Amino acid sequence: MDAENLPVINNYLDAGEARLSRMHFHDNQRKVDYVLAYHYRKRGAHPSHSSPGHALAIVSNGEMGKEPHAGGPGDIELGPLDALEEERKEQREEFEHNLMEAGLELEKDLESKSQGSIFVRIHAPWQVLAREAEFLKIKVPTKKMYEIKSEGCIAKKFNEILQKLSSPLKPRVPEHGNNKMKNLSYPFSREKMYLYNIQDKDTFFDNATRSRIVHEILKRTVCSRANNTMGINSLIANNVYEAAYPLHDGEYDSPGDDMNDRKLLYQEWARYGVFYKFQPIDLIRKYFGEKIGLYFAWLGLYTSFLIPSSIIGVIVFLYGCATIEEDIPSKEMCDQQNAFTMCPLCDKSCDYWNLSSACGTARASHLFDNPATVFFSIFMALWATMFLENWKRLQMRLGYFWDLTGIEEEEERAQEHSRPEYETKVREKMLKESDKSVVQKLGTDMTEREDEDDEDKLTWKDRFPGYLMNFASILFMIALTFSIVFAVIVYRITTAAALSLNKATRSNVRVTVTATAVIINLVVILILDEIYGAVAKWLTKIEVPKTEQTFEERLILKAFLLKFVNAYSPIFYVAFFKGRFVGRPGSYVYVFDGYRMEECAPGGCLMELCIQLSIIMLGKQLIQNNIFEIGVPKLKKLFRKLKDETEPGETDSAHSKHPEQWDLDYSLEPYTGLTPEYMEMIVQFGFVTLFVASFPLAPVFALLNNVIEVRLDAKKFVTELRRPDAVRTKDIGIWFDILSGIGKFSVISNAFVIAITSDFIPRLVYQYSYSHNGTLHGFVNHTLSFFNVSQLKEGTQPENSQFDQEVQFCRFKDYREPPWAPNPYEFSKQYWSVLSARLAFVIIFQNLVMFLSVLVDWMIPDIPTDISDQIKKEKSLLVDFFLKEEHEKLKLMDELDLRSQGAGHQSRRSRAASSAPSGRSQLGSIASSGSQHTNV
Amino acid sequence: MDAENLPVINNYLDAGEARLSRMHFHDNQRKVDYVLAYHYRKRGAHPSHSSPGHALAIVSNGEMGKEPHAGGPGDIELGPLDALEEERKEQREEFEHNLMEAGLELEKDLESKSQGSIFVRIHAPWQVLAREAEFLKIKVPTKKMYEIKSEGCIAKKFNEILQKLSSPLKPRVPEHGNNKMKNLSYPFSREKMYLYNIQDKDTFFDNATRSRIVHEILKRTVCSRANNTMGINSLIANNVYEAAYPLHDGEYDSPGDDMNDRKLLYQEWARYGVFYKFQPIDLIRKYFGEKIGLYFAWLGLYTSFLIPSSIIGVIVFLYGCATIEEDIPSKEMCDQQNAFTMCPLCDKSCDYWNLSSACGTARASHLFDNPATVFFSIFMALWATMFLENWKRLQMRLGYFWDLTGIEEEEERAQEHSRPEYETKVREKMLKESDKSVVQKLGTDMTEREDEDDEDKLTWKDRFPGYLMNFASILFMIALTFSIVFAVIVYRITTAAALSLNKATRSNVRVTVTATAVIINLVVILILDEIYGAVAKWLTKIEVPKTEQTFEERLILKAFLLKFVNAYSPIFYVAFFKGRFVGRPGSYVYVFDGYRMEECAPGGCLMELCIQLSIIMLGKQLIQNNIFEIGVPKLKKLFRKLKDETEPGETDSAHSKHPEQWDLDYSLEPYTGLTPEYMEMIVQFGFVTLFVASFPLAPVFALLNNVIEVRLDAKKFVTELRRPDAVRTKDIGIWFDILSGIGKFSVISNAFVIAITSDFIPRLVYQYSYSHNGTLHGFVNHTLSFFNVSQLKEGTQPENSQFDQEVQFCRFKDYREPPWAPNPYEFSKQYWSVLSARLAFVIIFQNLVMFLSVLVDWMIPDIPTDISDQIKKEKSLLVDFFLKEEHEKLKLMDELDLRSQGAGHQSRRSRAASSAPSGRSQLGSIASSGSQHTNV
Repeated sequence: MDAENLPVINNYLDAGEARLSRMHFHDNQRKVDYVLAYHYRKRGAHPSHSSPGHALAIVSNGEMGKEPHAGGPGDIELGPLDALEEERKEQREEFEHNLMEAGLELEKDLESKSQGSIFVRIHAPWQVLAREAEFLKIKVPTKKMYEIKSEGCIAKKFNEILQKLSSPLKPRVPEHGNNKMKNLSYPFSREKMYLYNIQDKDTFFDNATRSRIVHEILKRTVCSRANNTMGINSLIANNVYEAAYPLHDGEYDSPGDDMNDRKLLYQEWARYGVFYKFQPIDLIRKYFGEKIGLYFAWLGLYTSFLIPSSIIGVIVFLYGCATIEEDIPSKEMCDQQNAFTMCPLCDKSCDYWNLSSACGTARASHLFDNPATVFFSIFMALWATMFLENWKRLQMRLGYFWDLTGIEEEEERAQEHSRPEYETKVREKMLKESDKSVVQKLGTDMTEREDEDDEDKLTWKDRFPGYLMNFASILFMIALTFSIVFAVIVYRITTAAALSLNKATRSNVRVTVTATAVIINLVVILILDEIYGAVAKWLTKIEVPKTEQTFEERLILKAFLLKFVNAYSPIFYVAFFKGRFVGRPGSYVYVFDGYRMEECAPGGCLMELCIQLSIIMLGKQLIQNNIFEIGVPKLKKLFRKLKDETEPGETDSAHSKHPEQWDLDYSLEPYTGLTPEYMEMIVQFGFVTLFVASFPLAPVFALLNNVIEVRLDAKKFVTELRRPDAVRTKDIGIWFDILSGIGKFSVISNAFVIAITSDFIPRLVYQYSYSHNGTLHGFVNHTLSFFNVSQLKEGTQPENSQFDQEVQFCRFKDYREPPWAPNPYEFSKQYWSVLSARLAFVIIFQNLVMFLSVLVDWMIPDIPTDISDQIKKEKSLLVDFFLKEEHEKLKLMDELDLRSQGAGHQSRRSRAASSAPSGRSQLGSIASSGSQHTNV
Repeated sequence: MDAENLPVINNYLDAGEARLSRMHFHDNQRKVDYVLAYHYRKRGAHPSHSSPGHALAIVSNGEMGKEPHAGGPGDIELGPLDALEEERKEQREEFEHNLMEAGLELEKDLESKSQGSIFVRIHAPWQVLAREAEFLKIKVPTKKMYEIKSEGCIAKKFNEILQKLSSPLKPRVPEHGNNKMKNLSYPFSREKMYLYNIQDKDTFFDNATRSRIVHEILKRTVCSRANNTMGINSLIANNVYEAAYPLHDGEYDSPGDDMNDRKLLYQEWARYGVFYKFQPIDLIRKYFGEKIGLYFAWLGLYTSFLIPSSIIGVIVFLYGCATIEEDIPSKEMCDQQNAFTMCPLCDKSCDYWNLSSACGTARASHLFDNPATVFFSIFMALWATMFLENWKRLQMRLGYFWDLTGIEEEEERAQEHSRPEYETKVREKMLKESDKSVVQKLGTDMTEREDEDDEDKLTWKDRFPGYLMNFASILFMIALTFSIVFAVIVYRITTAAALSLNKATRSNVRVTVTATAVIINLVVILILDEIYGAVAKWLTKIEVPKTEQTFEERLILKAFLLKFVNAYSPIFYVAFFKGRFVGRPGSYVYVFDGYRMEECAPGGCLMELCIQLSIIMLGKQLIQNNIFEIGVPKLKKLFRKLKDETEPGETDSAHSKHPEQWDLDYSLEPYTGLTPEYMEMIVQFGFVTLFVASFPLAPVFALLNNVIEVRLDAKKFVTELRRPDAVRTKDIGIWFDILSGIGKFSVISNAFVIAITSDFIPRLVYQYSYSHNGTLHGFVNHTLSFFNVSQLKEGTQPENSQFDQEVQFCRFKDYREPPWAPNPYEFSKQYWSVLSARLAFVIIFQNLVMFLSVLVDWMIPDIPTDISDQIKKEKSLLVDFFLKEEHEKLKLMDELDLRSQGAGHQSRRSRAASSAPSGRSQLGSIASSGSQHTNV
């Protein structure tokens, strides 16, 4: 029966003029700026009852409106409705009525069928746009243009060459006007209309701004029936409406030449084919709003900053490769002649072994454990600071070109409304309290209590259970993460012990165990990552934050904390704790009964850290990108398609032939915020900075990932999501704080990695304090302590030693007194001096790098000089502009005075008196202000 | 002859109505908002030539103006003037003409004498005030009032009690309206005049705002004769004018009941008698503007924050006193039975000595070197963070009540004009360049080149010499400071050596030397402090910064750096370097020939640090407060008075009988900025935080000083300085960064003081690793190494030892191997383990305290909750207010439409079309906008 109705509409439309776009009201003139969707269901109605003739009617409050009133009668003849449905219907009617009161124009199809989706299309007429633009202080370009100052001669030429070179990398989007001229912007004001270049009132505000304005009205319109809730979000939360979204600009894959911004974005940005091109940031901002524009600008800057660090990372790695032959300690280790007989790695089943058998790992670890990595980690700490500084500058620059310089944080926040959940909670609280005091209050007026409601808010007492729950849950989650890390350690220890019992597997115990353990870690991280994301959301909901912004901030903090702990705890374990609690031969530390704590490989823990890091980082990126970001959405789409097909296709089948834009957009996924996108990048930023001392290749992998990530995200936004509301924002908010926090933490963590995990300090100390000739010859010998095998505990000796020579002393890696010293096996003086050196290094490194970061921070001004010059110039131009207007006005007024009153001697006086009130009127109303003089 | 003229004016005035205040034009109506003063000199004129009748004439462009025009003829008959004077005169004439063009009204006395001071009084009429207030976006109260939300029930009661208790502490100044109501503020706009409660146009803007507006015009008015310079500052720099200042509100010490704000401030704030009272911050801000208001608010908060830290500091000190008897190490040292024979303190002339003779210093050092100081330094680090956080909050709160929430940093900066020195430099540069290219440019228009001038600015190349000079000078100054510190060290070493030769003086060598050296240090610091202040100013002038703000910032940074190094370098030396380069018996380190490096007293270096710190801090405060802040200004005043009396008193003698307010103010010192006041406090803040671990009494002394300092500064501002221009600012600028920098640095410095300078760590290590019974018994013995006296170098043994027993081994304070060890006198294992512990402590302390600081920073929201709620509420009230206005306007318009055109069916259309332009007019001009419909 659906198929019966819609052709009628289309016929009707065809009868009129051909519609150019599917984004307008049926009068083909008024643009649809916003769509509210809801699903209705009539109980009594039977499909066959409705007459096809009704489908023609379109309810609208514009000139097209031929029906009496939206939500008016029209369905009175129908049977009794479900109570809840009825209530929702009434709420919708009131809400829509209020919207029309606010000046918006609505259009919707009639509820002709027994059930189906109804789209309420909203159009904002010029006077509403103008009024709201004034309230929101939206800056719009004025008539006045000015030249953006170009640099000096040399810089100019250099710039031109750069421009030419990079031209193939530029996306082919039309520039908004001349690049060297900028319109002077001024907050929109209806009193100063003459300032602006208003050629066409329909296109003066672009689509994103229009929908932002409508969204603003939707957010603050009250619906008294629905418990006096404020705004569309509450109504959506209460299922009164199903969805509210602005429309996309058209189809991105439409054939033919008709171009729209969405298609342009798709062709020049949201395809893998254009991965090498710059992003058309201005267009992205124009289409999606400032918030999303800033995300992509940030992502772009981050990716381009990864290029130099990748190059240097590769150079550092190659330096390691090149110097591997010259590294004395690994040569000494590999030298068969230096027969260091090592103590057995496990009790009973393990034998004594020769250090030269660990030659491979020693050589490999030199790749990452060389002086260049110290330099690289200093470089990366400064890189992080530089990146953040440059982001601040880019943010300022974008803010200038996007006219955000006037927005204030507090102002933005002040415009935020409470979340529906918060309001519900407050209402519940008030109800409870009023129940208690119902006896006293029985006589008081209801409206008075409602006033109090507005004043009231959740106190700390009300929130306490939520906070407690949060605290407990987060502690639990962190404990869970730690215990999983511990479980993997136990797995490693026990498996290693089990495998080493078997002779066949003994040879590659370490490789097997490490590999499997890391993979287990990775899988656990990936699973917990998803769980923690959901848990963080749930916990934040329990907390009932007041505004959307606090909700987002709290959610981000919690999710970040949980995901950070989850992703990094196994890495932290390997970096700082593994192999430190082994004890020594003769008094090993045992975990459970008979399982010795695990040690690091002979090459040092750094190698293992590197393996751990690379597998987790790469695995996480590959799997998350492929499965979660590409696979899951496809599956969801498939699933929904299947579901739609199995259900009685009442609404879809017909629409699918000639779907309206709102139908198309309705079938897309709703936009749920940028948090996951940022979170992924932030965790990656952690991988790139926190342990860069141990894995200089991290930036390269991050770079490769991000080149894909940009286009993946772009594609998602352009093709798979409903158009998000254009949100105006000046910065990336809490993410910046998190980034700079990670940057600071990375200094400490790298200091410890170099000092504690790597062999850098012991080598230095040996070279300058113990070595006879200032080289590292003898370093390996120096790091190994002696142990008298006769002192091995009973039952822990190798059972059937096949070692080719008689062993009296075995060696182990530690600085301890030899068995023949007065206090054998105590930490030796070397131990303490090396420890002092390590700690001193941490202090020096940390403070030096922190100081350098502060210096870099201070040296690079937050506002680029050219931008601050421009802002200054703009201000002074504005003052000149106004003063000129003022002067002209005064002149005209004097002339009028002279003409109208003819009394020359009075002109001076009246000028002084009149110019104050006259200022309020524009040039067009001078006549009137002239005649007002008698009143003043 | 002066005496002849002035009485005439006074007679003239007496003939009219009695003048209520000496702050108005001679019409007694128009208020003097600003005064420009200059000194004129006529060459040809002879005293007796001028006729007394002329003195009556007052040049004014208001209604009083009976003379043709300011700077018009009037002095044509006089002889030829000096060329420079003539030029200046013309510049003044043009400038004053331009000011009148801008709408200001001027009044000045005629230049009747051969030379004298002329005061140009400026009055800003209402239309100028209104126009400028709109440009400057000055927020003014609207009619709409709203209640400031009060807290919950308990908090309210608690607050009331607190209010009652503190009422005697409150200054008795009239509150501006009800304390619980606040006017909704909105930037002044002439189109929205109906919003504001304008009862009297003369008093709607308060005096500070009026003078700010005039100052703003003065700053941007161009004088084309004076090389096209912009603003009064350039003219003052070129000696065209001598001074420019707004007027004080009256006399502060006038007898009688007539009250003005200045008198009120004097009585309730700027006297030592009211030292216990809170400061009337709102009144200060009203009178002096936001910048000075913020300074006193900051000083007040700092002082009140010193109270808790003083209390805890005293408790920590008392704890030291109380536990002095229980301190085992000092008891052991004092115990005569533990006969530790110490190695001689100097070569030859010093004898072996018994450690128990140093008992006194050991006991004294316990006062400051006890575990409580560790706690106290953590407390003070958090205190510093808390203070800064609370300052941010107070700043926000004041910003809210002072309606500063709308000001933007960039906006403020953009309104800054270039400094005259910068402009001169640019002009010189352009002249030079045009000289070079004079051949080509000969034909081009002059005005064209002038345009280019404006565009041009100093490049890095032009600035390089300045920067180089700066860099070199600063390096030189720092080197100078260091060498003076070194010179004092040398003084100490040599004097000690000299004194110990003489038996009579030997007993109190240490006291004498330390005391004299510290006093030398103090004197040098005080002298260099003044020199460095001047040098920093000079260096900043060389740098030629562009704006006043950058000038101030650079000056502050340089002055801070120099003064910081100057004040703290001797203290840093004592804290971290003294006694570390002594060497050991048998191989002492010698500075010059035969002078051993100085050691710390046996009680440890902490005691000396404490003495150094307390003397420098107290001395600096006492001397600077008394001499520089009280004495020098008095001397200056005296000197000027003497000078005035000796000079032919042409202008003063008559004025002194009935001086006008501008005469009185002219005789005051000009205001030169807050930098010295802030600097003094910042250096004090450094004393309080940087070494608090060694001197817990520092906060107490700072508190005592500040209680006086507040009133001292207040008195200066109220009675001794010309009224400063009211400068609008949101925050204390770069000082906050410096404060937080000191706060961060104090964490590190305290960590090192505790770890390196104090004996805290060695005691802990001994107690937990070496002690047999877990107590400190034997600690003193443990810290002393043995030395075999036979190994003393030839010629360094005590010459005639009177020590009562045969000495084989003497002891010295260090951890070294004993003479009988295989490697005697090398650092022992204890040394390294203690060093490790020290360094570990630094790392832990630094990171823990930094983490806690970040936590505190994060936990305390920058914007107080009630303020952010209020801001939100204000915004929503504003939107409601406007929407209501809007609605009423629309209604009225509809009615008018119906009435005027009588065509009911058209009303809808015209309403939609008309509401956009109608918005521009206020309610009073509705009729006019109704008639405009035909144009739209």
